[in-house]
Amino acid sequence: MNYNFSTTAQDAHPSDIRNLLKLAQNEEMISFAGGNPDPSLFPQKEVTEAVVHFMEKEGIAALQYGPTDGYPPLRKLIADKRMKSAGVQQTSMDQVMITTGSQQGLDLIGKAFLNPGDRVICESPTYSGAINAFRPRGISYHAIPLEDDGMNMLELEETLQKDPKIKLIYVIPDFQNPSGSVMSLEKRMKLLELAEQYQIPVIEDGPYSEISFQKERLPSLISLDKSGVVIYNGSFSKIFSPGMRVAWIYAQPEIVQKLAVLKQGADLQTSSFDQRLIAYYMQEHSLDEDIKKITEFYREKCYAMLDEMEKSFPKDLEYIHPQGGFFIWIKFKEGLNAREVLEYAKNEKVLFVPGNGFFPNGGGENYARLCYTTSSIEQIHEGIRRLGKVLKNFY
Amino acid sequence: MNYNFSTTAQDAHPSDIRNLLKLAQNEEMISFAGGNPDPSLFPQKEVTEAVVHFMEKEGIAALQYGPTDGYPPLRKLIADKRMKSAGVQQTSMDQVMITTGSQQGLDLIGKAFLNPGDRVICESPTYSGAINAFRPRGISYHAIPLEDDGMNMLELEETLQKDPKIKLIYVIPDFQNPSGSVMSLEKRMKLLELAEQYQIPVIEDGPYSEISFQKERLPSLISLDKSGVVIYNGSFSKIFSPGMRVAWIYAQPEIVQKLAVLKQGADLQTSSFDQRLIAYYMQEHSLDEDIKKITEFYREKCYAMLDEMEKSFPKDLEYIHPQGGFFIWIKFKEGLNAREVLEYAKNEKVLFVPGNGFFPNGGGENYARLCYTTSSIEQIHEGIRRLGKVLKNFY
Repeated sequence: MNYNFSTTAQDAHPSDIRNLLKLAQNEEMISFAGGNPDPSLFPQKEVTEAVVHFMEKEGIAALQYGPTDGYPPLRKLIADKRMKSAGVQQTSMDQVMITTGSQQGLDLIGKAFLNPGDRVICESPTYSGAINAFRPRGISYHAIPLEDDGMNMLELEETLQKDPKIKLIYVIPDFQNPSGSVMSLEKRMKLLELAEQYQIPVIEDGPYSEISFQKERLPSLISLDKSGVVIYNGSFSKIFSPGMRVAWIYAQPEIVQKLAVLKQGADLQTSSFDQRLIAYYMQEHSLDEDIKKITEFYREKCYAMLDEMEKSFPKDLEYIHPQGGFFIWIKFKEGLNAREVLEYAKNEKVLFVPGNGFFPNGGGENYARLCYTTSSIEQIHEGIRRLGKVLKNFY
Repeated sequence: MNYNFSTTAQDAHPSDIRNLLKLAQNEEMISFAGGNPDPSLFPQKEVTEAVVHFMEKEGIAALQYGPTDGYPPLRKLIADKRMKSAGVQQTSMDQVMITTGSQQGLDLIGKAFLNPGDRVICESPTYSGAINAFRPRGISYHAIPLEDDGMNMLELEETLQKDPKIKLIYVIPDFQNPSGSVMSLEKRMKLLELAEQYQIPVIEDGPYSEISFQKERLPSLISLDKSGVVIYNGSFSKIFSPGMRVAWIYAQPEIVQKLAVLKQGADLQTSSFDQRLIAYYMQEHSLDEDIKKITEFYREKCYAMLDEMEKSFPKDLEYIHPQGGFFIWIKFKEGLNAREVLEYAKNEKVLFVPGNGFFPNGGGENYARLCYTTSSIEQIHEGIRRLGKVLKNFY
């Protein structure tokens, strides 16, 4: 049998990251290639307690079908807690829809707004999972170069002016994946102004927003939005557990209702069980306190990595010092291909993700993404030393 | 802000069934409108035990990201148990991919095989969720009339011959939703022969296949398939718990690998937690024994409904006596609109689903679907008597 796959499927290739995960299982390997949270932070005992608790109280409902837009108490908790933490003053659970991971949020937003031939503005580089989420809609990307403080606003304005096929703008304003950069307040305001003017919805992807190494965070786009142009994509993966696949969209009710209809066709609903698990956990524990602990933990690892990079890497590498999130993004010298570096790094038993998968239209061969969250402090020092040794061959 | 939704989103409307669920919450209401399993059959205590068990043994992994194609022990259990039960002799876990409910299986198959403008063959009537799953691909349906023993094979052959835009065939051979019909062995063989000849993949949707009121089941399409033309879509929703959103696809490795790449873009993976929950449950209990009990329970309810229909309904209604599954499908006289009947039924506090949502290209206004699984025997008798009273006004 000869399978006649769709254009979408023909263009779909496994992500580098998921493939590197297999290599990372080798015990001697130090992997900076993943994007997982540190599992030592998972509240194992408390999760079991929450399950025992809700199974007693509402076991039948936890095993039965539930509403497509989500378990109402969880929607309310997200509005009251997480969206307040994102700086939204007046929150409403009617603006919350539960999704099966924030990846599904992107898939559904793509279905809601994109026709074949449309175009999406994103940062360059950007989250490779977002590239994969929108591609099945038969669209293409206008990728706008990312500067230290967010995308280039002149190019954004020019693009919106010239290109009527633009239908969505996708950004990660806080501790961007992969670059670690933060969009400045000035650019946040400008982005909203332009999006409103051209009536183009902005997806604010915020999985790392609460992992901030500074006390003060810049206001989220959703908190600055006066016209309903922002769709916020939030997630429990980095602040609680990614294994659950529970995340949410916060947007105007008109959008949320449309997304819920599309979710019926995608997976009917997110797990009734996992939604209760998180809701009960949030009722019984302070996620804010957890987040403080998590952030402190990652800050220490990030600083250890930066410290060792300072000592062990060639001097003319460029990278942003992250103020939060999971990643350090490195620019090698022009002409040096990160995939070639990776081959040598594998031999030295250290892994990272080559950067070009984060550029939707190609390029970026001389970039690399390093994740500091899952390695121990010792592994971070040792891994960076190994990578420094590899890089000395090229500099 | 004026939202410029995609064609897909503009065409998407909430399903009747999910809307009727709200009315069904009225305590006096007897609802035959759902499609839920009976929650008294859920193994509440055993589920809690399974969670406590796996959280002790592998709590970290249950809360962490896992492989896109699924938790390996669950994939193996599905190959060894469920696909053996579907009559496949030589099974392999490499042919199993876990999905977030069988609804997601349909969404992913659509992404893998359908380009805008393509056409899908389905039975008429068919599962409304399948209609919603493929529509976002920008496709249309050729709906082939369903006879008592499956779709009309002459029309199938003629369509495959004439229409080069056909890319998939979607069928529910066992206890079809909504009609309750079973495809005959002769038609199963013919369907496979034609699909092979024209090289068009066949989706065999099997959520009800194990809920068989007869000891002998006809062989599944996947068990008869010699060429790799069949993609089997299986689910735990009707035999264990729908709240989990765990289901699977069984197909050739080439297809499974393609679907896994597309799943990365859709939700990365299905809940690590829920997959373990089912795997541990299956290791510690016999799902085959559960299914026997479930089937016995539904048979009794189905026969009670048929019995009361015989007594309380007008004589010239047409319906198939189901041999399994969840539904009885009723044809009212020509010209009688089921939606009108439903308005009267609501007043009498009884609900069913009007049939026309199950016809992808419209029509079927004089059909209705009744579900017998969640009502008690007493409610079944009372509800059918109420509906009989309503129908007397029209006959």
